Amino acid sequence: MTERLEKQLAFILEADKSKQVFRQTYISDGSRKENDAEHSWHLALMCALLHEYANAPIDVAKTMTMVLIHDIIEIDAGDTYAYDDAGNETKRAREVKAADRLFGLLPDDQRKWLRGLWEEFEEGESAEARFALALDKIQPVLLNDATGGRSWQEHEVKASQILNRNQRTPGGSRELWDYIKGLIEKNIGLGRIQDDREKEK
Amino acid sequence: MTERLEKQLAFILEADKSKQVFRQTYISDGSRKENDAEHSWHLALMCALLHEYANAPIDVAKTMTMVLIHDIIEIDAGDTYAYDDAGNETKRAREVKAADRLFGLLPDDQRKWLRGLWEEFEEGESAEARFALALDKIQPVLLNDATGGRSWQEHEVKASQILNRNQRTPGGSRELWDYIKGLIEKNIGLGRIQDDREKEK
Repeated sequence: MTERLEKQLAFILEADKSKQVFRQTYISDGSRKENDAEHSWHLALMCALLHEYANAPIDVAKTMTMVLIHDIIEIDAGDTYAYDDAGNETKRAREVKAADRLFGLLPDDQRKWLRGLWEEFEEGESAEARFALALDKIQPVLLNDATGGRSWQEHEVKASQILNRNQRTPGGSRELWDYIKGLIEKNIGLGRIQDDREKEK
Repeated sequence: MTERLEKQLAFILEADKSKQVFRQTYISDGSRKENDAEHSWHLALMCALLHEYANAPIDVAKTMTMVLIHDIIEIDAGDTYAYDDAGNETKRAREVKAADRLFGLLPDDQRKWLRGLWEEFEEGESAEARFALALDKIQPVLLNDATGGRSWQEHEVKASQILNRNQRTPGGSRELWDYIKGLIEKNIGLGRIQDDREKEK
């Protein structure tokens, strides 16, 4: 076996640990929480089926690869819940260290490529990153809605937090955001998300 | 919301059930069996990183989409273990019925597209299908090797079964097959796979 294939397979096997990094969102039947590998699979499937709604044309293979690897750094850095303010303060430093180690398992050209894709996702500037970010925020809303807002209620999530979290979603897809906004409103109406938007009442 | 988006999201939510279809292979730490969503994510990642080893040039986005959806029919049809001969006799009929229902949730153009990709995968003739099939057979060998051959031993799997199962793997990638063949030989040597190849002894 060449050294190149050896490195690629070492990364592929290490990446398997994504199946053990659990998120706060429940899968659609509410039986348990979702892990990073499942979440990333779901985003890639959504990318294949929904890219027609991207605000700008995107490279689909690139965007699928971006979502497939966007959470791999959590193998070392852990999943930081979206509304965990303390955790989010140290998030970037933990994730950069994780990216160094994990993508560092790959041959040089692929290390640079995947590391670059991850940074591009984090920056959220390119058309691909904007759409990937939108999918990453939309998918948990779909699952939360399907499970009666279970994760939102467990964490007593407020409307302002979700809307803030989705600030960049319309930048990826105005059409998908229009739909998701409606779903959020519906769940606020049902009391599954706490309405803290005083001024608008 | 348009009827089109409604159908797409209905499929995306239904596909979530892939996270509850468990395979016989253990994840790399041996703690539990792998589900279809995780398996499909792993194949798509392997496709992104290993397509340079495909015997013929492949359309990467197409192949990634193919592996992302190749097991969705198991939501209705269940996972048929590779070495379950009785189950494999009724497999095709169960899977066609599942494909009708599941891909039928999508808008017409996407129903035809994904159904076509699934049939193409099953037929295994195109360059993309050959490579996808190779990945689908290689990945469990990697995980079985990483877990000390756990699933092979539980099912008392024989060398002839694994080699037969991998008959089409070299048709997707001779280079990857060369490596995997070595891994299988190693595990036969370690007694994790039963050696039933009398003639060669």
